[in-house]
Amino acid sequence: MKATIERATLLRGLSHVQSVVERRNTIPILSNVLIEAQGGEGLKLMATDLDLQVVETVAAAIDQPGATTVSAHTLFDIVRKLPEGSQVQLTAAEGKMQVVAGRARFNLATLPRDDFPVIAEGELPTRFELPAETLKQIIDKTRFAISTEETRYYLNGIFLHVSDETQPVLKAAATDGHRLARVTVARPEGASGMPDVIIPRKCVAELRKLLDEVDGSVAISLSTSKIRFGLGNATLTSKLIDGTFPDYSRVIPTANDKLLRIDPKSFMEGVDRVATIASEKTRAVKMALDRDKIILSVTSPENGTAAEEVPGDYSAAGFEIGFNARYLLDILGQIEGDQVEVHLADAAAPTLIRENDKAAALYVLMPMRV
Amino acid sequence: MKATIERATLLRGLSHVQSVVERRNTIPILSNVLIEAQGGEGLKLMATDLDLQVVETVAAAIDQPGATTVSAHTLFDIVRKLPEGSQVQLTAAEGKMQVVAGRARFNLATLPRDDFPVIAEGELPTRFELPAETLKQIIDKTRFAISTEETRYYLNGIFLHVSDETQPVLKAAATDGHRLARVTVARPEGASGMPDVIIPRKCVAELRKLLDEVDGSVAISLSTSKIRFGLGNATLTSKLIDGTFPDYSRVIPTANDKLLRIDPKSFMEGVDRVATIASEKTRAVKMALDRDKIILSVTSPENGTAAEEVPGDYSAAGFEIGFNARYLLDILGQIEGDQVEVHLADAAAPTLIRENDKAAALYVLMPMRV
Repeated sequence: MKATIERATLLRGLSHVQSVVERRNTIPILSNVLIEAQGGEGLKLMATDLDLQVVETVAAAIDQPGATTVSAHTLFDIVRKLPEGSQVQLTAAEGKMQVVAGRARFNLATLPRDDFPVIAEGELPTRFELPAETLKQIIDKTRFAISTEETRYYLNGIFLHVSDETQPVLKAAATDGHRLARVTVARPEGASGMPDVIIPRKCVAELRKLLDEVDGSVAISLSTSKIRFGLGNATLTSKLIDGTFPDYSRVIPTANDKLLRIDPKSFMEGVDRVATIASEKTRAVKMALDRDKIILSVTSPENGTAAEEVPGDYSAAGFEIGFNARYLLDILGQIEGDQVEVHLADAAAPTLIRENDKAAALYVLMPMRV
Repeated sequence: MKATIERATLLRGLSHVQSVVERRNTIPILSNVLIEAQGGEGLKLMATDLDLQVVETVAAAIDQPGATTVSAHTLFDIVRKLPEGSQVQLTAAEGKMQVVAGRARFNLATLPRDDFPVIAEGELPTRFELPAETLKQIIDKTRFAISTEETRYYLNGIFLHVSDETQPVLKAAATDGHRLARVTVARPEGASGMPDVIIPRKCVAELRKLLDEVDGSVAISLSTSKIRFGLGNATLTSKLIDGTFPDYSRVIPTANDKLLRIDPKSFMEGVDRVATIASEKTRAVKMALDRDKIILSVTSPENGTAAEEVPGDYSAAGFEIGFNARYLLDILGQIEGDQVEVHLADAAAPTLIRENDKAAALYVLMPMRV
């Protein structure tokens, strides 16, 4: 293998694939990136952790086709430090890969390309496209609610499913049992009849990074066990979580009769301020609602007390309810408009939060005893 | 106590004193900041860790003099989150301090001001002034070499002493046994006959932060056991390290006969690049010198090899020497000009590095076997 490539091009390509590679690996080749020089097609870079695989093709002048694998993080660090604007020559021979740029010359240990594991995609019968912007929105508005509890592995991702209620929709949901986030978008052509899938957290994170550099559409193909995202020159393939996502729709309250309308920004700032003195463990904030009078407060045995009145529209019966400040801030941080609806029932019932009834995103937050 | 103060003013003052406060304290009051409202003098803020104490006076409207102590980090976090431009009212009464700004109201637990420990300065007979810029230079060019080995506590700071060689000078030195950094400046008036002192690392760090906001001169007063820095509205007082700094002048080579003149930037970049593949433990870089030909190289059992030729002026006998790349980069990073002198003797002898023979700073680096 022999190829010449611009440093900036190689760096961008490596930055996309190397973050899939775990820092510690019991299987040595999983630390490596596969580099394949294909006549006329540029350089193919590929990295995997056995569950997730990223392939990207970058423009390069190929002098001699071939392939090898070298440490992904080491190569990335080297290329990062090479002089800006330099041309990088990659030559693989006799179990080594030589990297030459300017006056610098590296001889890197390699492992055989044939040992590099590739995820067998199998058939991916469901195929549809989503605008990159829509996919970003789906991820941004739900990922914070993904559970990190490893024992509840079926909650460690974003649940994607189609539904035909009043109109055909695609829904994405994530929950950790304390809060739930759901985004509903129009069902894209080709998604009809797709299986319910749970996209793992790491796939979501890598996908989100790649989306920052994509305009236009993302081609999604999936089966019951795998999903593939085509993003321009990059392809992300991931195993899906093999589990059953709970029937979350039952958690979404439909009869909460107490409505608070409030500016999410001043609400957020007030919660953030009073929560300063909340104990790290509970992070509990109390909200006392009365006619157009909302008082946020925190009592901490060590630190003292905090209270702030925030303006809001409320005309139902007065009562008090407690929330985890962190969870409440996570949700409020997702609201873009200047008003948010908080639908409450009582101090023990799940609370529904959304911008309005036309918003794509909807949040459910469990209260805390305060 | 009752005082009103602008949020920005209070925040700036607290940011200066709160970083002295350790996150964990076995003595509860050490987590607190002392707030003292003095008629006509503004608000005095004070924090200590028993070894180091910062006092800052900030402008405030005092309605009722008095003093109290509250958690420094909590108050800092609260003030940080208060609305920009707001006026903050501080009222201490009945074991609580009330903080009111806009619609937010906090009641914070306090501890009695009389329990707050103050460092007894005693007599500080030596008094002199240093331009803030000079003090910054002294710190910036030496602090990286301060030892972090707690057993060698006498190396855990910057050694400051006066000397009369060809002219009266003030010298600052730091070393960890692997490298040494020394800065020499003209001896300020009043420093003659001062005792040798070792300024602890934490004092150096806090002083450096405060210096960023000081123009003009810093008033330094010291005895054999304490040092005080007067920086505008802030005063930093620290215990000195009670120990004997080794006679470091014997380590500075005077007869190194092999001189390399090199551009520090390309030298640094070359070292940084080849060191990419060096093992984390040794970080060893080999430098092979020959007539005007300098080759940097690293051999790593895991990663492979790296080599880079860097341009330099060298006319002595060729030989090879090894350095810890991290230490070499630390020193080269201090050189501001476009040439650095590297005075070498042999592969086992300490190497002298300096910009030129007129430079205030001088560095000694022990080689490594490679």
